[in-house]
Amino acid sequence: MGFTSLSAFNAILADLPDADQDALLGAQARNATLTKPAGSLGRLEEIAMWYASWRGDARPDVNAPQVIIFAGNHGVTAQGVSAFPPEVTVQMVANFEQGGASINQLSKNAGAAMSVHAIELDRPTEDFTTAPAMSEEDCVAALLIGWNAVSETSDLLVVGEMGIGNTTPAAAIANALFGGAAAEWTGRGTGVDDAGLQIKTDVVAKGVAKFGAQDPLQVLAALGGRELAAMAGAIARARVLRIPVILDGFICCAAAATLEKAHAGALEHCIAGHVSAESGHARLLDALGKQALLDLGLRLGEGSGAALAIPVVRAAVACHSGMASFAEAGVSEG
Amino acid sequence: MGFTSLSAFNAILADLPDADQDALLGAQARNATLTKPAGSLGRLEEIAMWYASWRGDARPDVNAPQVIIFAGNHGVTAQGVSAFPPEVTVQMVANFEQGGASINQLSKNAGAAMSVHAIELDRPTEDFTTAPAMSEEDCVAALLIGWNAVSETSDLLVVGEMGIGNTTPAAAIANALFGGAAAEWTGRGTGVDDAGLQIKTDVVAKGVAKFGAQDPLQVLAALGGRELAAMAGAIARARVLRIPVILDGFICCAAAATLEKAHAGALEHCIAGHVSAESGHARLLDALGKQALLDLGLRLGEGSGAALAIPVVRAAVACHSGMASFAEAGVSEG
Repeated sequence: MGFTSLSAFNAILADLPDADQDALLGAQARNATLTKPAGSLGRLEEIAMWYASWRGDARPDVNAPQVIIFAGNHGVTAQGVSAFPPEVTVQMVANFEQGGASINQLSKNAGAAMSVHAIELDRPTEDFTTAPAMSEEDCVAALLIGWNAVSETSDLLVVGEMGIGNTTPAAAIANALFGGAAAEWTGRGTGVDDAGLQIKTDVVAKGVAKFGAQDPLQVLAALGGRELAAMAGAIARARVLRIPVILDGFICCAAAATLEKAHAGALEHCIAGHVSAESGHARLLDALGKQALLDLGLRLGEGSGAALAIPVVRAAVACHSGMASFAEAGVSEG
Repeated sequence: MGFTSLSAFNAILADLPDADQDALLGAQARNATLTKPAGSLGRLEEIAMWYASWRGDARPDVNAPQVIIFAGNHGVTAQGVSAFPPEVTVQMVANFEQGGASINQLSKNAGAAMSVHAIELDRPTEDFTTAPAMSEEDCVAALLIGWNAVSETSDLLVVGEMGIGNTTPAAAIANALFGGAAAEWTGRGTGVDDAGLQIKTDVVAKGVAKFGAQDPLQVLAALGGRELAAMAGAIARARVLRIPVILDGFICCAAAATLEKAHAGALEHCIAGHVSAESGHARLLDALGKQALLDLGLRLGEGSGAALAIPVVRAAVACHSGMASFAEAGVSEG
């Protein structure tokens, strides 16, 4: 299964599987019997129900979380939108491969398998202030890299990214999809100063004016980047495989938003792992109707906030599936 | 080392060890070299610095988290302050011992060793609306149970509790220590209705009026319970052993607050694992100057919210101690 055009990918989005209602009902029935006051595990109970419904199993386990990092380079960095030089993308990919980055530690801590896909780092996207970032062909190729990177045996997915300059395309996508002023979506990324932030905001506004008024997947191609398209492809594939997804920060959510805008409900298999310190992320989560699990001021990317949430999701499912019922434990109900 | 009176325990609190400033400086220096934009791991960086300072190691590991559950029964349940009958305490202890409770799953998920101490469940405390909950002798005995329950080889501690009715003594302690109206500290616990909440609030007010104007450790004895005193004893012992502590919800924090009120700074080795849905907890965290790591609507007790935060603390330390530096990874700095 795959696709060779954006319209073919769009057709897949129009025909995504839904959550399993029988598993959901079964999980709800089980939850009501467990040895705790009703509702006392708060959001952990919601997460367990959501997870059960997507796995089609009223008493599921989380055994095989997968973290996939996609890396890409961005022509728009020529405009001076990042605090770091573009060669850091390939340097950080090497750091991922050698186990030295934050996401390596977080994946290991979460018991997750991690892989890295560097996508044509020596061929940056076009600068979207002058030309579409990607051709349809390039965008489809990147979507497919994400699509094919998801393991069929995974049972929980995190997609992360590395790409110097990529909060700029993320802001442009969010602005194109949800409107408002460029400044509302544009933040400091890895740490640009006030002058850099102004440049970045102008760049976002210019890109949105030029390429923003298109279909969501065309917005992804024209304003996005290879790692963003790959994340979107992986999130869509996870839906087809009924693998629940933990969304990461601003860039991940901007990529994901193109799916939601293409077909409402396309992100029902996703929860928001965290809200980042990047200024547009809280706004983007609101626009997507997602409430973050964690709020710890992270703004690193790499899938770090989502990977940090893996143990929380695992804990929710472990409580649901491992606890005794009142009857089994001989505990009096309130 | 130990104590045989509340005044002897108080003397220990007056002479607690402080965090290691050299380790803190070493950790800060290391943090500045790691392959991430400065500050981009947000609170994870603060947690790593705090943990390093208490462990006296600029590059520490979390290898041996310990979860200890203390259980006690409360004479004040005769007033109708809980949605569950008091026999549930001993039933839930059996559930802990058989592995069927939420905290069993959460401890396992966090890789933590868990133990349970049921403290004289067949001898409930006195009803504090008529007499002090515990004699000094009983309170010291309970403090010592907590004190001795902490393993010297642990490197991260969670203390939790089980005790039907114990949000009532917790509210009474918090109200006695921090003032305000009883209603500001009294919540629904495991789920009392409006009438039950009114009874509970009146009970708290009556106890505070009768026994609230004493030294903090005497408040613990007169308004507390055996599991609360044991938690306080364990938290103090952890400080002596330089074991960082993750505080749980309202009951744990009320017990901990007696230490802080006895000696300001006594909880510097503690972070707040979560803010619970119990109405007084956010207020109590504010009074203690603690910002919760997680906010997921839990209101279960058992140490559940703190145990859920163990993987977050572990992740923070893993990033700090496992990441490569810019120089090691050959990554350009911004």
